[in-house]
Amino acid sequence: MDAVPYISAAAAIAGLVLAFYFFGVVRKASPGTPRMVQLMAAIQEGARAFLRREYQAVAVFVLIMAIIIGLLLPDGWLRALAFVVGAVFSALAGFVGMTVATMANARTAEAAKTGPQLALPLAFRGGAVMGFTVAGLALLGVSVAYIVFVQVLQLDSGVDIVTAYSLGGSSIALFARIGGGIYTKAADVGADLVGKVEAGIPEDDPRNPATIADNVGDNVGDVAGMGADLFESYAGSIVAPIALAGLAFADQPYEQAALLFPLAIAAFGMLAAILGAFLVKTSPDASGADLARALHRGTNVAAGLTVVLALVLAWWLFGAEASNWWGFGVSVIAGLAVGVAIGRLSEYYTSDHYKPVKRIAASSETGSATNILGGIATGKMSVAGSVVLVAVAIAAAYAAAEYALPDVSGSGVYGVAVAGIGMLATLGVVVATDAYGPIADNAGGIAEMAHLDPSVREVTDELDALGNTTAAIAKGFAIGSAVLTALALFVSFQFAVQTAREGAGLDLSIANVEVFIGLFVGAMLPFLFAALTMSSVGRAANQMIEEVRRQFASIPGLREGKEGVVPDYARCVDISTRAALREMLLPGALAVVVPLVVGFISVEALGGLLGGVLVTGFAIAIYMANAGGAWDNAKKYIEAGHHGGKGSDPHKAAVVGDTVGDPFKDTSGPAMNILIKVMTIVALIFAPAFVQYGLFG
Amino acid sequence: MDAVPYISAAAAIAGLVLAFYFFGVVRKASPGTPRMVQLMAAIQEGARAFLRREYQAVAVFVLIMAIIIGLLLPDGWLRALAFVVGAVFSALAGFVGMTVATMANARTAEAAKTGPQLALPLAFRGGAVMGFTVAGLALLGVSVAYIVFVQVLQLDSGVDIVTAYSLGGSSIALFARIGGGIYTKAADVGADLVGKVEAGIPEDDPRNPATIADNVGDNVGDVAGMGADLFESYAGSIVAPIALAGLAFADQPYEQAALLFPLAIAAFGMLAAILGAFLVKTSPDASGADLARALHRGTNVAAGLTVVLALVLAWWLFGAEASNWWGFGVSVIAGLAVGVAIGRLSEYYTSDHYKPVKRIAASSETGSATNILGGIATGKMSVAGSVVLVAVAIAAAYAAAEYALPDVSGSGVYGVAVAGIGMLATLGVVVATDAYGPIADNAGGIAEMAHLDPSVREVTDELDALGNTTAAIAKGFAIGSAVLTALALFVSFQFAVQTAREGAGLDLSIANVEVFIGLFVGAMLPFLFAALTMSSVGRAANQMIEEVRRQFASIPGLREGKEGVVPDYARCVDISTRAALREMLLPGALAVVVPLVVGFISVEALGGLLGGVLVTGFAIAIYMANAGGAWDNAKKYIEAGHHGGKGSDPHKAAVVGDTVGDPFKDTSGPAMNILIKVMTIVALIFAPAFVQYGLFG
Repeated sequence: MDAVPYISAAAAIAGLVLAFYFFGVVRKASPGTPRMVQLMAAIQEGARAFLRREYQAVAVFVLIMAIIIGLLLPDGWLRALAFVVGAVFSALAGFVGMTVATMANARTAEAAKTGPQLALPLAFRGGAVMGFTVAGLALLGVSVAYIVFVQVLQLDSGVDIVTAYSLGGSSIALFARIGGGIYTKAADVGADLVGKVEAGIPEDDPRNPATIADNVGDNVGDVAGMGADLFESYAGSIVAPIALAGLAFADQPYEQAALLFPLAIAAFGMLAAILGAFLVKTSPDASGADLARALHRGTNVAAGLTVVLALVLAWWLFGAEASNWWGFGVSVIAGLAVGVAIGRLSEYYTSDHYKPVKRIAASSETGSATNILGGIATGKMSVAGSVVLVAVAIAAAYAAAEYALPDVSGSGVYGVAVAGIGMLATLGVVVATDAYGPIADNAGGIAEMAHLDPSVREVTDELDALGNTTAAIAKGFAIGSAVLTALALFVSFQFAVQTAREGAGLDLSIANVEVFIGLFVGAMLPFLFAALTMSSVGRAANQMIEEVRRQFASIPGLREGKEGVVPDYARCVDISTRAALREMLLPGALAVVVPLVVGFISVEALGGLLGGVLVTGFAIAIYMANAGGAWDNAKKYIEAGHHGGKGSDPHKAAVVGDTVGDPFKDTSGPAMNILIKVMTIVALIFAPAFVQYGLFG
Repeated sequence: MDAVPYISAAAAIAGLVLAFYFFGVVRKASPGTPRMVQLMAAIQEGARAFLRREYQAVAVFVLIMAIIIGLLLPDGWLRALAFVVGAVFSALAGFVGMTVATMANARTAEAAKTGPQLALPLAFRGGAVMGFTVAGLALLGVSVAYIVFVQVLQLDSGVDIVTAYSLGGSSIALFARIGGGIYTKAADVGADLVGKVEAGIPEDDPRNPATIADNVGDNVGDVAGMGADLFESYAGSIVAPIALAGLAFADQPYEQAALLFPLAIAAFGMLAAILGAFLVKTSPDASGADLARALHRGTNVAAGLTVVLALVLAWWLFGAEASNWWGFGVSVIAGLAVGVAIGRLSEYYTSDHYKPVKRIAASSETGSATNILGGIATGKMSVAGSVVLVAVAIAAAYAAAEYALPDVSGSGVYGVAVAGIGMLATLGVVVATDAYGPIADNAGGIAEMAHLDPSVREVTDELDALGNTTAAIAKGFAIGSAVLTALALFVSFQFAVQTAREGAGLDLSIANVEVFIGLFVGAMLPFLFAALTMSSVGRAANQMIEEVRRQFASIPGLREGKEGVVPDYARCVDISTRAALREMLLPGALAVVVPLVVGFISVEALGGLLGGVLVTGFAIAIYMANAGGAWDNAKKYIEAGHHGGKGSDPHKAAVVGDTVGDPFKDTSGPAMNILIKVMTIVALIFAPAFVQYGLFG
């Protein structure tokens, strides 16, 4: 059994090797014409420059946090080290993903010249590099930290040090999501409002000064931001049950099994994902349906294997201790099943094949106001089903695990925690199908800017559309696992406080006024967070709009597209970069500072606060993601020729909805997941300090 | 001390007498030209017809609930009786308010012909009829129920019967708010989108077929809906501390004082309000500033008196039992102070004198999308301050009351409960200044439709603007008290379950998985509720739009305003009526059915659910109210000549925001307060049945 962390480290390295292999495959492909190479280089340069500056800014934060951790906590400097390594790995995952994505875009466009059969595997492999880098680095870090601090050194705070690694990843993810989200939407909204609406030139037109910034934004937001986000989701989902087991099951016979089960699931899930990735192949005469099937095959096989593995591993690790060992397997499977269901549900609310988006499109007939109201109502409506699904997952995973280890405090929640891994075990291949989308999208942008044949754009659009279902499922996994992981971390926080108080309980009853006030303030924080991030996008977009207008007004011949006249792309890139860096600080810091301040005042209030953030944050995240997706696709549905098509009044109304939805789905919404977890992990890690130094202990 | 409920009954009757006196004053005034009388009659007829059908529909619901209450609970038929009386009184309050408001509108327009000096007191007295009818009926019912069932019959369930009275009022309020809100916004959005935007005719133009429906809507939504809403807020705030005292302080020496203190505050608050109402007087040569001062004088004096009374009454009732009796007085004052502060804060976010609205107006320069994003961000931002203020009120009221009665379980929350009365004690005069707004607004509509001199419309607009600050404070009271009342009811629910379980506790810890699932589902419900009510408005508005388009297309000469051509107003009235009745059922039933179903499954989950609804419902209520108000005033700010003024592109963008904000601030948002309380009272009342018949007892 002690071999498990070595197996998971080996599986992580296997994932990294696969990523390196796919990286070589992508690099070998032709990047196309000199014009394409030039565009690719410009995007790459802008994205790198942003990440460099972003990481510099975040490094200061990481350093301060590391010092606080080092000073306040037992074995603090080891925790600080793990925290810093987590941060560096998370940043690295984002950087690698972004690098390969910016390499794959031009190459996918080039391959698309001959149709989708070559372009699909290329874009998929680009995504897979990111997927397996993210999963490989995250799992490697957890495994090594576990081997060193828990197995070899056998430190009392060994598990806590592993948790600190996870916080490092989450911190970077938070800033990367917010910063990237502000960057991409400032550029996008700015480019669209002046370019498409005022100047009347098409999207991705090289005359638009913000167009490079817009494409850079896709890479730093949708790719690097998503990479860091998934790093933290995945690492968090593995660490949460480990942390819980270390606290709740300390010195019990099943402690060892409970500590290792998450690593085992992750290890074999990685191998299943590697197998799945190799199954995404296309024949030269494949049809569109064949391509879609190829893309689904990878994730489906990996998911099917996970179901079997969950039961086998539960038997292996718990078979000796629990006669109903299969309960833990069922918990993992419950998570996986509900993750898929959440993805399907958000597809229902955001795809133009179903009623909700069609209704929003129809409501555009009576103007922007009804389009906006329709999108808001749809997004809010979608919260209900998602919450019910997650509640079912929690109840099922809890009941199954409690059945496996009855009368053990914490066993039910441990089941909820491993359900979170169930969703993310095959992350490598799932991310590949998700990151594939932005690569295809960017390939389309390059095709447009490099004036390639319109057929190339059609192919990339087709590829982009193919990945929609799989991408929805990946999002369902990310957000569904966030709740399960956060709930497990929350219960761990309760155990940690009780341990620090040497057994004296933590009263988290809602009817306790401290808890209630905390709950109340916690439920407000996601609103504040959404307001801050949306205002940031608004301010940054305004600067961008002014700059684009200025260039159109002051550079003669630009609007008309006179030969040899190029806009000043760099200034727009610079505006997005500066704005994103400036604006990400306040909301990012909030997530860390608020639990620290509240925790030192009252641990009970902090407990309530975390509960409030968790439940409201999830609801708002789902609402914003689905409202944004629905507006986007309602616009696309009209553009496909319904309700008067492109340029009609309903289309103009739908463009307004799409623009409102941009920061919803790409800035405020996705950051909410991470917010929930960062706050909970901060609370968990600092629990001993709150008890020792806090006002009301 | 036993005289207190008799005093409060007498004060209630004094309030009703004042209402009757003011009713006579309003009726004596001249209703103006035959055309004005005709318009007034049409509005009155439509509003009455709607209320009649609404009450018929709700009567079925009330009957079913009464039977369930009668069958399932001890002394059930007495509770059912109190429930029905509460429902009837609440309906009556709405009906009287609506009747006098529809009488006062034409009369205020007529008085405005000579300027604001006569029109202001008339509109104010119209509002005062409603204010004192609402407060008088609510307090009379509570007092009589208390005298009969607690003092005379001395029933064990005497206090519970008083609580059932409050649920009756709340049930009607919920349906009245939702139904009225859907009615008014369907008509408003329909009238605006076709009339103003498509046909290009001004607001309230008699050519618009939806214009009567629009004016009817103002009365059934803003007046009758608000009347029922405030009835329930006021009754609830008095009943909540009584219910808590009956459960938490049973057989303690201070039980009697704690039961009577709320009634005493309400009784003397009523007298203070009556005094305040007489102070709203104007001299014939009063300036605008004088008028505003007159309006404020009434509420300010009443509030000042409440501060003194709170301390005197605390000394009278608690002086013998608690040496720190003044703590309870401080609790009441804390509520009052924070109520004013919340009102001021929402004024900051929604008035065009401050930055937020000016920024939204400026963001309209770049189109509807940025205007929408600005409004959403402003609304969400406003949640933070409001939550912090309420949290401060809770903490202060809790601490002060706990200081007065230390080591008594429930004393702190009792302080929170009486803080809720602090806000609403002078309801009569506060409502007068709030209901005054819609009356002045409607007077303007009549002036427009009756083609009176434009100077009349200017006067009514001036009057309307004067009431804005006081109306904001009234809204702050209503929503602030909702949280305090609901928290007290929630803690009462916990005590009620413990009593029914004969002492076995109710574990409401967030870390308990049943509670967590409940919390999670509870946090989702306000989103679902908002989605349902917004979709209802959307559907109803669409029907209205089609009907108005049909009339413009099929009635020759209508659009051109040919002499003698009148639209078919009645059909538009009928569309709004039917739609409102049909659409109010699902969200209204949800509020009652969900706690019943969940309660019979798991009382712990129900506890979590109530906590989730409470904190998220408050946040969404504030968000929607302030976003809607901010959009509305950003549009008015532009209309006042900024950013290009009326008809400019920024103005068109701002109209979109205003339309989106309509259902936010007038349908979904205001119903949220009531939702919170209805669900909590249902839980409290059925607590014994849940324990006796529930699945997991």
